[in-house]
Amino acid sequence: MQFDMPLSELKAYTGKSPKPEDFEAYWERGLKELDQQSLAYELEPAAFQSDQADCYHLYFTGVGGAKVHCKLAKPKGRSGTGPGIVMFHGYTVNSGDWFDKVNYAAHGVTVLAMDCRGQGGRSEDNLHVKGTTVRGHIIRGVDDPDPDRLYYRHVFLDTVQAARILMAMEEVDPGRVGVYGASQGGALAVACAALEPRIKEVVAVYPFLSDYKRVWELDIDNSAYKEISYYFKMFDPNHEREDEIFQKLGYIDIQHLAERIEASVLWVTALNDMACPPSTQFAAYNKIKAKKELLLYHEYGHEHLPQLSDRVFQRFLTL
Amino acid sequence: MQFDMPLSELKAYTGKSPKPEDFEAYWERGLKELDQQSLAYELEPAAFQSDQADCYHLYFTGVGGAKVHCKLAKPKGRSGTGPGIVMFHGYTVNSGDWFDKVNYAAHGVTVLAMDCRGQGGRSEDNLHVKGTTVRGHIIRGVDDPDPDRLYYRHVFLDTVQAARILMAMEEVDPGRVGVYGASQGGALAVACAALEPRIKEVVAVYPFLSDYKRVWELDIDNSAYKEISYYFKMFDPNHEREDEIFQKLGYIDIQHLAERIEASVLWVTALNDMACPPSTQFAAYNKIKAKKELLLYHEYGHEHLPQLSDRVFQRFLTL
Amino acid sequence: MQFDMPLSELKAYTGKSPKPEDFEAYWERGLKELDQQSLAYELEPAAFQSDQADCYHLYFTGVGGAKVHCKLAKPKGRSGTGPGIVMFHGYTVNSGDWFDKVNYAAHGVTVLAMDCRGQGGRSEDNLHVKGTTVRGHIIRGVDDPDPDRLYYRHVFLDTVQAARILMAMEEVDPGRVGVYGASQGGALAVACAALEPRIKEVVAVYPFLSDYKRVWELDIDNSAYKEISYYFKMFDPNHEREDEIFQKLGYIDIQHLAERIEASVLWVTALNDMACPPSTQFAAYNKIKAKKELLLYHEYGHEHLPQLSDRVFQRFLTL
Amino acid sequence: MQFDMPLSELKAYTGKSPKPEDFEAYWERGLKELDQQSLAYELEPAAFQSDQADCYHLYFTGVGGAKVHCKLAKPKGRSGTGPGIVMFHGYTVNSGDWFDKVNYAAHGVTVLAMDCRGQGGRSEDNLHVKGTTVRGHIIRGVDDPDPDRLYYRHVFLDTVQAARILMAMEEVDPGRVGVYGASQGGALAVACAALEPRIKEVVAVYPFLSDYKRVWELDIDNSAYKEISYYFKMFDPNHEREDEIFQKLGYIDIQHLAERIEASVLWVTALNDMACPPSTQFAAYNKIKAKKELLLYHEYGHEHLPQLSDRVFQRFLTL
Amino acid sequence: MQFDMPLSELKAYTGKSPKPEDFEAYWERGLKELDQQSLAYELEPAAFQSDQADCYHLYFTGVGGAKVHCKLAKPKGRSGTGPGIVMFHGYTVNSGDWFDKVNYAAHGVTVLAMDCRGQGGRSEDNLHVKGTTVRGHIIRGVDDPDPDRLYYRHVFLDTVQAARILMAMEEVDPGRVGVYGASQGGALAVACAALEPRIKEVVAVYPFLSDYKRVWELDIDNSAYKEISYYFKMFDPNHEREDEIFQKLGYIDIQHLAERIEASVLWVTALNDMACPPSTQFAAYNKIKAKKELLLYHEYGHEHLPQLSDRVFQRFLTL
Amino acid sequence: MQFDMPLSELKAYTGKSPKPEDFEAYWERGLKELDQQSLAYELEPAAFQSDQADCYHLYFTGVGGAKVHCKLAKPKGRSGTGPGIVMFHGYTVNSGDWFDKVNYAAHGVTVLAMDCRGQGGRSEDNLHVKGTTVRGHIIRGVDDPDPDRLYYRHVFLDTVQAARILMAMEEVDPGRVGVYGASQGGALAVACAALEPRIKEVVAVYPFLSDYKRVWELDIDNSAYKEISYYFKMFDPNHEREDEIFQKLGYIDIQHLAERIEASVLWVTALNDMACPPSTQFAAYNKIKAKKELLLYHEYGHEHLPQLSDRVFQRFLTL
Repeated sequence: MQFDMPLSELKAYTGKSPKPEDFEAYWERGLKELDQQSLAYELEPAAFQSDQADCYHLYFTGVGGAKVHCKLAKPKGRSGTGPGIVMFHGYTVNSGDWFDKVNYAAHGVTVLAMDCRGQGGRSEDNLHVKGTTVRGHIIRGVDDPDPDRLYYRHVFLDTVQAARILMAMEEVDPGRVGVYGASQGGALAVACAALEPRIKEVVAVYPFLSDYKRVWELDIDNSAYKEISYYFKMFDPNHEREDEIFQKLGYIDIQHLAERIEASVLWVTALNDMACPPSTQFAAYNKIKAKKELLLYHEYGHEHLPQLSDRVFQRFLTL
Repeated sequence: MQFDMPLSELKAYTGKSPKPEDFEAYWERGLKELDQQSLAYELEPAAFQSDQADCYHLYFTGVGGAKVHCKLAKPKGRSGTGPGIVMFHGYTVNSGDWFDKVNYAAHGVTVLAMDCRGQGGRSEDNLHVKGTTVRGHIIRGVDDPDPDRLYYRHVFLDTVQAARILMAMEEVDPGRVGVYGASQGGALAVACAALEPRIKEVVAVYPFLSDYKRVWELDIDNSAYKEISYYFKMFDPNHEREDEIFQKLGYIDIQHLAERIEASVLWVTALNDMACPPSTQFAAYNKIKAKKELLLYHEYGHEHLPQLSDRVFQRFLTL
Repeated sequence: MQFDMPLSELKAYTGKSPKPEDFEAYWERGLKELDQQSLAYELEPAAFQSDQADCYHLYFTGVGGAKVHCKLAKPKGRSGTGPGIVMFHGYTVNSGDWFDKVNYAAHGVTVLAMDCRGQGGRSEDNLHVKGTTVRGHIIRGVDDPDPDRLYYRHVFLDTVQAARILMAMEEVDPGRVGVYGASQGGALAVACAALEPRIKEVVAVYPFLSDYKRVWELDIDNSAYKEISYYFKMFDPNHEREDEIFQKLGYIDIQHLAERIEASVLWVTALNDMACPPSTQFAAYNKIKAKKELLLYHEYGHEHLPQLSDRVFQRFLTL
Repeated sequence: MQFDMPLSELKAYTGKSPKPEDFEAYWERGLKELDQQSLAYELEPAAFQSDQADCYHLYFTGVGGAKVHCKLAKPKGRSGTGPGIVMFHGYTVNSGDWFDKVNYAAHGVTVLAMDCRGQGGRSEDNLHVKGTTVRGHIIRGVDDPDPDRLYYRHVFLDTVQAARILMAMEEVDPGRVGVYGASQGGALAVACAALEPRIKEVVAVYPFLSDYKRVWELDIDNSAYKEISYYFKMFDPNHEREDEIFQKLGYIDIQHLAERIEASVLWVTALNDMACPPSTQFAAYNKIKAKKELLLYHEYGHEHLPQLSDRVFQRFLTL
Repeated sequence: MQFDMPLSELKAYTGKSPKPEDFEAYWERGLKELDQQSLAYELEPAAFQSDQADCYHLYFTGVGGAKVHCKLAKPKGRSGTGPGIVMFHGYTVNSGDWFDKVNYAAHGVTVLAMDCRGQGGRSEDNLHVKGTTVRGHIIRGVDDPDPDRLYYRHVFLDTVQAARILMAMEEVDPGRVGVYGASQGGALAVACAALEPRIKEVVAVYPFLSDYKRVWELDIDNSAYKEISYYFKMFDPNHEREDEIFQKLGYIDIQHLAERIEASVLWVTALNDMACPPSTQFAAYNKIKAKKELLLYHEYGHEHLPQLSDRVFQRFLTL
Repeated sequence: MQFDMPLSELKAYTGKSPKPEDFEAYWERGLKELDQQSLAYELEPAAFQSDQADCYHLYFTGVGGAKVHCKLAKPKGRSGTGPGIVMFHGYTVNSGDWFDKVNYAAHGVTVLAMDCRGQGGRSEDNLHVKGTTVRGHIIRGVDDPDPDRLYYRHVFLDTVQAARILMAMEEVDPGRVGVYGASQGGALAVACAALEPRIKEVVAVYPFLSDYKRVWELDIDNSAYKEISYYFKMFDPNHEREDEIFQKLGYIDIQHLAERIEASVLWVTALNDMACPPSTQFAAYNKIKAKKELLLYHEYGHEHLPQLSDRVFQRFLTL
């Protein structure tokens, strides 16, 4: 059943959740902290074998000292520099199988796929925050007086660090780097491109982490955002601090980052998406000022989308 | 909740649905008909581009005159013969994206991915049968006095024809051909290997089309088999012809084909699979006499299985 | 929960799905083809016994050569001509029990109840079309370049043929013939009356097959229309051919036929109908120009409606 | 999913709920009270018209003074006596449309269809009991120290009174009277035949009101029996009076009445019936000592059963 | 998902269900009848023990002769008069545990907690009405020509009688009496304060029994109001008597009583309440002319509300 | 529907999940660490007022340095020592309202109600572990090589520290201290009594955290244990480390602690509990060697249980 706006309204929708006044300062401060972070990393050969790609586990130290893990797949036997992509995964899971990374590598593209700290892969979260530690990461740090301790602030900075590491590899042309992900991964692709202007291409598939107030108003049972309801139910049931809370979440709301993007964007929205409702996605998409293309899947929700891997593949092969 | 047998019983379960007495004769007759079928095909270059693979649409004429479509991805710039795989898709959908086929091709494996006639791809069904034409393909032909008009009899023969076409390609070593699929695709991989003894490797992921009586007894609402209930509700509500109907379905029950397999088998079962209940899968697996390996996903159902594409890839790269 | 428009809007709603420009020509061509069709039929005595009615199975040959089965119940021991009704059944099932037909016959009304070709009764579908053959009949033929191969085009013509056969029986006064059905049967009653102007009375209960675009927009999970979503998901996920597809479905959309009706109409809508949403029904009802009456069931859905069989019975007894 | 016993166990199952020691005395006392009850009734012509049947509303006074309403349909223009049937309806609804009654009358059978007191028809309940008056009739009177005040004790006696009234009509041959109903109506048909030995034929379709303890153990959410859970939750959550309560319900448990039946019985069970689970039905069926026939619908639940109205019609036409 | 109006509309909403013209006369007549009712009662010591409170079962005779039970908890060892509260419970259950009553008594507040007649406690319903006796109490008496036989008319008067009994106790200062309840209990608190102007404080938590037409239009499956749908389905499916029925329900609609309240009101609404939709609550709240405070729980439904028992406790301790 | 064992099997069931060999050593080591922990605490007057109780927020430092918050309610104006109880709350929420604590205090019982670190109250979690930090606390630390870093190991020790703090208060007789909780709170009551032998009474209501392997086998969708499935799905889908994982969870499985209890136990189980299935509760209950009483709620699940607060109150008033 129609649970969100009709398409015509979506195309004009610009979001409900507030943007903190010091939003730009917040992220400039973050990027400055990141500049101090070493781009060094460790490599460990993977058990997975391919005659077209070299496969490694790569570990770097993220802001605050977290140990962040990535999968790295490099083309075998190519000379000179080529394109690269950073991949991001969905909420609570991990960077997934080698299969798709190796396919890119076999076609000359270096792939770095990051595991988000503390989620379902090998990256370790070491963030200390005040406040609850159950029910997920969106709200982690919301109760800490210091907004610089929000979980996603760190992860957004990790994405930039990963991109910088990839760009610094000798096989990679830093002017030909793209970012790619779906759901949380789509949000991270947006965040990374917003914070690292050298990114050339973004593919963001039904991105998460946008327009928190809208998703709360829609009040969808199985939304990936339900930890926001949990937070209010436990800590502010009568919404005495509603504004303050949405202000704080504003720092890690990708709709406010979207306007910073300079890369070319392919944005994919499934109109039956109950996990990341279309309006929250359009709130961000509509703010992008760079070159952008919208691809709609009308009958699909937050699920596998046919023909998409081919379309994205073709796009990145010409990075 | 536990809806099927515990694992210890599954490992000993050998099925409930009857095997028709003339089962072997039925399939010998089918294979004889297939032997008359020309292995000629048409090629049409695909719009999808890769510098590692040549991509074509391939069309052949299946038994009864149906026009069957396959995706063909061939390694570029390799000399000599190499391995090949035939891929089969899930019920009602199609052969899917080029992405995974091209990855195999980039690693030297020729891939032929068949669209089942009349389902969600480009293959056309031209089967005329007596009886109902709504609610799916398992029951198509059950009411026809001639058991040779069952829909899946034709599709099983199509899988063999596809394998023969692949084996006859000059780049392919017919002794190094595997079959691979999930759900309906897993069933077709089993059927193909059972009917074409030259197949060397089978990867069957939660296969469909097995032990129809068991699935009917389990009476699962969202099972992919629900058209069997529809058939009984409309045409035999008091089960006066129950035996006859299950006898007829016995011709296209992969558990009875499984014992013919000579290839090496990797069998993947997700223990929470409500679409293709584990017991129906074990009914077939337990009958395989060839070399076989069972890979269980304990918490998963009929859904994406992590690490599986890597494991299968590694297996087929050493065909 | 309110899932469709409020009653005041329903009463003004005139539909969303387009009417093809050559709609009238399409059906004139169809009727011309039908005129070539013989009105001959075979009779076979039924096993069912009544001392008030003669019961037969009647078979005729429909357009394209399909063998169409009807139940025929004739009054026993009446002289002269009397009224007649043609009955149509719901989607995927069949013409049902003799019980109600015999009741009409016992009261002097000849009843002919048609099984739709290829659904849950004895009629056989022999339509060859290009394109998918799973998931139902609305979309059968949509992919065929020839719109004259749509499944429902043939069924609509079958309804007219059935009516003509009934009208030609010697016991029946062709000026006193009604049509009656619920769900798909309601749609067929509308189609029959629209295409055969001699029909005197229509009783259409929550009719199906109307305003396809509206039902798609409502996106109801358990709607009887869900095969339309399946079609788009498989064959046009990004809706590049949306207009073309709805145009083609427009040929078999009863809202466009409704305005042709000359008979007197009793239209029954249940306001909680999730299978055939009220707005789609009003789209057709509001276009009828003949004498019409609307009977609403406020708390009911697509289910048994109390007092309705009595009301319809009284109406047809005075045909 | 299989929620009750397999068929082989059902066929041997004889019930769990206890039979009170003074069960026979209880019902003898009831029948004695009924013998005092006048068989007089009032007739009121119905608005519904048929040229084959005379239709009336009939009112009689039931035990305790309740005003009980029935629909009466009599054959028109037949001489001599003929058969008759008493019909009973499902829980919370009413005697339904005239349509089916008139069909029987048109074929020479007099029909009396009773509305249960205080349910969805015109009969008025005037029972005063101690204890709760919400959530339904099974538990009405359970808390009254006098077991003669159970709601269903009165309704069971009403069924006998209705049968006696029909048998006493001059058009009816008291040796050719049947009883018929589904769900609650099936239970009432059983009760009536058990308490009035002149009944010749019983058709009981998925009867309700049997083996209360079993249904409670099955603990099915949407069962028609859920008011039993309500009673325990409110009045005996720790089951300190469990035995006493099931003893009291034993008086109105049709499995204990079933063994008294002398009529010939057609018993219909749908094996997916979640409202009146099959085991509770078999508990009663297996106790019948008279001539009996079991008709199973394998894939059906508590819903419309195809071909059943025809089968029952044929049966009653030869009463 | 948003199933009712947004908050801004709720704040302006004034209800849809009609107010009968003789509404004031209806209740003046009721109160006059109540004035004839004796305030005598019986006390029976409770098994529950506390050294801070004396606990009794109290029984009085309500209008029409029903035996109404209350729990009474009195402070021990306090001299002089103190405050008192009357508590009301939710639909179908009862006055609950002693625990909370004793807490109030330990703090000097006398508590009288009434069991509604015929629901889940010890009070006995003896109301005789015409019409259905299944499916609940809202509709009990709707079919009786005499509107003075509506079930809730009697219960509303019982609440006043209970308040008067409490006010007359020597330990209680009649000028310091409050009423308190949730769901049905919230509705009864409103009704009691509306009909007994000496009530000083009202705490009404998500009250039931308001704006019946709105709740019917919302058509929520699991609403506590669903018996209204049952009534229409059985007795007026085509809504020929819709106005008459809503008029009659208007007598027992708390929105029309709310404007009579003179006490100070704390009103608690949970915005996700599907059992008693927010709009129905605001219809009543918005009509209150006395001092009032609204407390919203944004993410909560018809369930336990955190911090509420503390807030209410603090409020009543300063009565 | 019956989803767990019948009562007779429950009464004999002794659990499936393994007990680590060094279980006793594990907890002796923990208790030794706890002995180093200071029993000092800070008090902060609460905003909540009562003339019968003094209400404070109490903060202590738990193992590893976490700041643990409790609500403390002390009887006002009593001399000498009296009994005390430690209360524990359900998973993800907090110590709740003051209302019930104050009632106990008004009756002379000192109450200390602990917020679990990092859940829905004021206690702060500062545990650093390797591995995932999403989806809850049962699995927190499972991936850390050091089993002493399991989240619940720390919480269990916190419960002992809270009990020791209460016992050391001058108003409290350390020989008259009880523990009380439901769900997670029931598990913590068990753990506390098992680890602090001076506890005299335990009331454990449908306890959580027991027999992890059983709950995993039952595979219930809405179980509070679902994070175990998440862990396996992400980190061990093919169960290569199944034994190791259940071994590690064995340290924090209350069934293994239950046999250490010396206090008298009231154990409450609701037989329809889908969140904490009855068998997992009986696995622990059946191992208790001390004096114990079982209270069953037959029709109830993981929800409010009537009459329970009264029964527990009476029990603790005689501590």
